Amino acid sequence: MRISELSEQTDVPIATLKYYLREGLLMPGTATGATRADYGQRHVDRVRLIRALIDVGGLSVAGARGVIDALVDDPDPTLDVVGHVHSALPTSEATDDELARADAFVESLGWSTNPCNPGRAALGSALSAVEAAGLTIPDERLRRYAASAREIAEVDLDAALSSRGLAGVLHTVVVGTVMVDPVISALRRLAQEHVAHERLGAG
Amino acid sequence: MRISELSEQTDVPIATLKYYLREGLLMPGTATGATRADYGQRHVDRVRLIRALIDVGGLSVAGARGVIDALVDDPDPTLDVVGHVHSALPTSEATDDELARADAFVESLGWSTNPCNPGRAALGSALSAVEAAGLTIPDERLRRYAASAREIAEVDLDAALSSRGLAGVLHTVVVGTVMVDPVISALRRLAQEHVAHERLGAG
Repeated sequence: MRISELSEQTDVPIATLKYYLREGLLMPGTATGATRADYGQRHVDRVRLIRALIDVGGLSVAGARGVIDALVDDPDPTLDVVGHVHSALPTSEATDDELARADAFVESLGWSTNPCNPGRAALGSALSAVEAAGLTIPDERLRRYAASAREIAEVDLDAALSSRGLAGVLHTVVVGTVMVDPVISALRRLAQEHVAHERLGAG
Repeated sequence: MRISELSEQTDVPIATLKYYLREGLLMPGTATGATRADYGQRHVDRVRLIRALIDVGGLSVAGARGVIDALVDDPDPTLDVVGHVHSALPTSEATDDELARADAFVESLGWSTNPCNPGRAALGSALSAVEAAGLTIPDERLRRYAASAREIAEVDLDAALSSRGLAGVLHTVVVGTVMVDPVISALRRLAQEHVAHERLGAG
């Protein structure tokens, strides 16, 4: 297909596609003339992935290129995909104390995670915010949340591993990581009410 | 204590405390003179609850008063607390189709929830957003997320029921509902990496 059709199929303006080509995010099409090239399904997939990284993941163009470069060079892309995406996602601000607290908790779970995982800073600062609002989460309660988070992560990984190709895996990890949070939060609110009805009688 | 001490203890300006008194969110102190009143621990608790409802829950002053009024009149406050708080929390926008889809899914789980639960609209619109980003969540995957959300809700309810007094229960439900979401999201990112390492080998 021509670049105009790629633009229609992906809903991304031609000028933006040309920018992705110049920046190396999008691979060149097959030249069919001095100023013409032919694009295929893998270009459509790549553009959708770029949009997911930027629009959904909140990555900069440079961040998106970093993820794509790292993964395209990776002989076994599924192996590191989670880590690469995580380390490219925007990170919360956390103090050294908050990071240390998050690390100590994650270590007590025996989880193997990497210092670049933005979940460390996110966990440390989220726990501080909860405490600033006057609530304490005892470690035992946090441990139960962690057990549920782990089950959610198993579902996430099943979904990522069943995706088609590198672009599919990346897409599932990025969109799944960032955009499924609100789904889980909504299910949690519904479940709270159901559990309250179940345990305390009809409201 | 005097209103100036209540202000210091709660970190809320005196003018704001007077506004809460006028609006009926904060119960009057015991009069100790024509223009003086004495405040106690229950005033401190109530002010913290008001701040949690407004700052953390994102409620308007009227919304906060609605929650407090409904619960103060309730002979058995823990029974309806989840529903009252939920129906006062800000709601996502969702189309009729999105609501219908969320309802059908919740019904398929056999959960008993109420039409005012903002999780319905939040679930419907979150699922649409995921799909707009090019990802489909099959029902079987959504069902697994729901099972984990239900376990999280059991932890939430245990925490709410072990809180001290009405203000404590409300505080735990509001802060716990709104501010624990980022904690769970952070744990999910950490767990994703751990599960990926566990299932795919060291990254």
